Amino acid sequence: VNIELINTGSELMLGRVLNTHQQWLCRQLADHGYVVSRQVAISDSAGDIQAAVREALGRADLVITTGGLGPTSDDLTRDRVAALLGRSLHTDADTLVRLEEFYRQRKRRMPDRVRVQAQVPTGAIILPNQHGTAPGLALEVEAGRFRSGGRSWLILLPGPPRELHPMFSNQVVPLLRERLPLDQPYACLNLRTTGIPESRLEEAISGPLERFVAQGLDLGYCARVGEVDVRLAAHGTSAGALIAEAEAVLRRLLPEAIYGTGDVRLEDVVVRQLTEQKQTVIVAESCTGGLIAHRLTNVPGASAVFLGGFVTYANALKQSLLGVRDETLAAHGAVSEETAREMATGARASCGADYAVSVTGIAGPSGGTESKPVGTVFLGLASVRGVEVTKCFNPFDRETFKQVTSQQALDALRRAILAG
Amino acid sequence: VNIELINTGSELMLGRVLNTHQQWLCRQLADHGYVVSRQVAISDSAGDIQAAVREALGRADLVITTGGLGPTSDDLTRDRVAALLGRSLHTDADTLVRLEEFYRQRKRRMPDRVRVQAQVPTGAIILPNQHGTAPGLALEVEAGRFRSGGRSWLILLPGPPRELHPMFSNQVVPLLRERLPLDQPYACLNLRTTGIPESRLEEAISGPLERFVAQGLDLGYCARVGEVDVRLAAHGTSAGALIAEAEAVLRRLLPEAIYGTGDVRLEDVVVRQLTEQKQTVIVAESCTGGLIAHRLTNVPGASAVFLGGFVTYANALKQSLLGVRDETLAAHGAVSEETAREMATGARASCGADYAVSVTGIAGPSGGTESKPVGTVFLGLASVRGVEVTKCFNPFDRETFKQVTSQQALDALRRAILAG
Repeated sequence: VNIELINTGSELMLGRVLNTHQQWLCRQLADHGYVVSRQVAISDSAGDIQAAVREALGRADLVITTGGLGPTSDDLTRDRVAALLGRSLHTDADTLVRLEEFYRQRKRRMPDRVRVQAQVPTGAIILPNQHGTAPGLALEVEAGRFRSGGRSWLILLPGPPRELHPMFSNQVVPLLRERLPLDQPYACLNLRTTGIPESRLEEAISGPLERFVAQGLDLGYCARVGEVDVRLAAHGTSAGALIAEAEAVLRRLLPEAIYGTGDVRLEDVVVRQLTEQKQTVIVAESCTGGLIAHRLTNVPGASAVFLGGFVTYANALKQSLLGVRDETLAAHGAVSEETAREMATGARASCGADYAVSVTGIAGPSGGTESKPVGTVFLGLASVRGVEVTKCFNPFDRETFKQVTSQQALDALRRAILAG
Repeated sequence: VNIELINTGSELMLGRVLNTHQQWLCRQLADHGYVVSRQVAISDSAGDIQAAVREALGRADLVITTGGLGPTSDDLTRDRVAALLGRSLHTDADTLVRLEEFYRQRKRRMPDRVRVQAQVPTGAIILPNQHGTAPGLALEVEAGRFRSGGRSWLILLPGPPRELHPMFSNQVVPLLRERLPLDQPYACLNLRTTGIPESRLEEAISGPLERFVAQGLDLGYCARVGEVDVRLAAHGTSAGALIAEAEAVLRRLLPEAIYGTGDVRLEDVVVRQLTEQKQTVIVAESCTGGLIAHRLTNVPGASAVFLGGFVTYANALKQSLLGVRDETLAAHGAVSEETAREMATGARASCGADYAVSVTGIAGPSGGTESKPVGTVFLGLASVRGVEVTKCFNPFDRETFKQVTSQQALDALRRAILAG
């Protein structure tokens, strides 16, 4: 199935917003076995929209557009697509009732201009919008109109993510399964790893997975800051079994580095572990400046296991709040194994948490020395089993440094809980 | 000038990474008066690359590609573009010297496959890469080859952002100014505002700016979480004067809401203010979970003004670290004006900071009550002038809640410093 995606929006062309739709839709489609071959972004102008849709229908089995279905004068997609396909627009009674109901429930008067969203091209399948007003529209385009060969499908989706995402998952995916089924079954699995750089990971697993690749396994890597996803995908009746076997091999090879599957985040895993163990954590951060606490508290339910955090940027606070000793700072400095140790010990003692994580380091861009260059980090982990300090070196720009260091700290915590 | 952008990368088509190049390049070009009319993303395959470049050259005065210039077998752009243009590749001696120097400086042996990056198509202008190995390439394409009308420019840029960004700013922008000059002068100004929702902002300024719009001012809005940019742009010899006048009107209308220009972040402004005043701040966070501290410490040089932070998720820590009283928690609860007041007072007293910011609220998804629904926030600000507490209501998903609340806290701090 040849798929093209068209994102409309003048703010995209001015670089005012990031095109998150592109990633989200490509990812969702790929996970269902459909790969997008081309994505195009264009302005809201009528001419650009018509030209892009016409060209895409000249190549693809399926064309998906996002945006331009709203009630304002900028929203031209519905109208321009109907004109391109030579279909007239008529008011859909069910959609109009839903629009009126949407406003009634919110106790607001429906502005007249909203009625245009009940206009649909002849022959369209209507995808009701559960989280907004504009319905999605799916249109089958007759063979030969824009390309020789088979028919095409054209699906128009609304722009706002909280409308687009559920509409895609609940309505578009079933429609694709029915109208554009894959030739053969498809399965995929995303394994999330941390602690091993992409090149070493690839070296470690490409050999052992070679025989699965020979059997049709599609093996992909995606590196982000501090972590690498390994993506296993396969087509055919034995796809599920092939992936399960490859997964088993990977889990034997990397018993600790794989922290989860799908889109799970490292902080989700840590909060789940602590919740299951009924244990608590406190953090004492210097160079990460609150990022570890921020990541943990992004997880709903974190309050059951995360007691709190110290961000001790000033040395005086390391002393007064965490009990780091004058002599330690004088003899070894704030960025040292000893300080990290005392920070973790002091944080744990302050509230009786099961685990305390500490980080002290040099985020840069300034502050480095010959013996402790920018990027130097000491990471402490205190638990009932004592305190362990690890030295790391993360010579990156300031924000990458913070992200990588917070990842190492959360991963040290994850491994400690696993081992505990 | 009609511009098209082509981003190559199979990981884009699988939705594994976000296409940040698109936003960055579109934004940079727009700020220089060049608007991209179409952006296309395609896989790394030879056929897709050639087809996309051929089509773009059939329409545009300037085509920019990103990616595919590296040394691996996936990197096909240089080769496929040369073939498409009918140009042969030859080794550029200067580039080869730079490649060898790049490895010599890093005390690494240059792998043989890297030499391919010194291959350039006949007639190309070479854009040396200051931060990596693959040079950029600029090619003038003769009129009539892909479209009737004038010549086109084709510029190939490397994919890694830290190579792409300086190459674009330092080498591509001057090239554009020389080879594809704008018909008339262009000026633009981005004003960053916070504290006023987009619809109210538009209401407040569209009337007073009407006369400038009539004179050719292009007025745009871009809303992000907790803030709205107002973009002023104009063409023509009086563009600069028109924008300066419009800016003066906006600054009179919104004396406090405009916190900066360009890409400056609210946290940058706060750190700069404190640095200029030689003042310090400490934060006491509950529901924002460390995000305020994280944002402040993202700013290089923050350590001179940011003493530290408390993340007091557990009530016991609000008491032991900040001195919030038992009676206060019992009578008013942790999410209350009184608790926010005592948190700010206690944080400021703990270290003698000039300012202390406190936040306590209900991030959700659970924990709300009839009288204090999810989204309720109390925000305290302590200084030599006493403590002020503001109540806010941010009924959003957890991460948006944190972002908006941290923005309100930083903005309260900014306004207090201004007033102080």
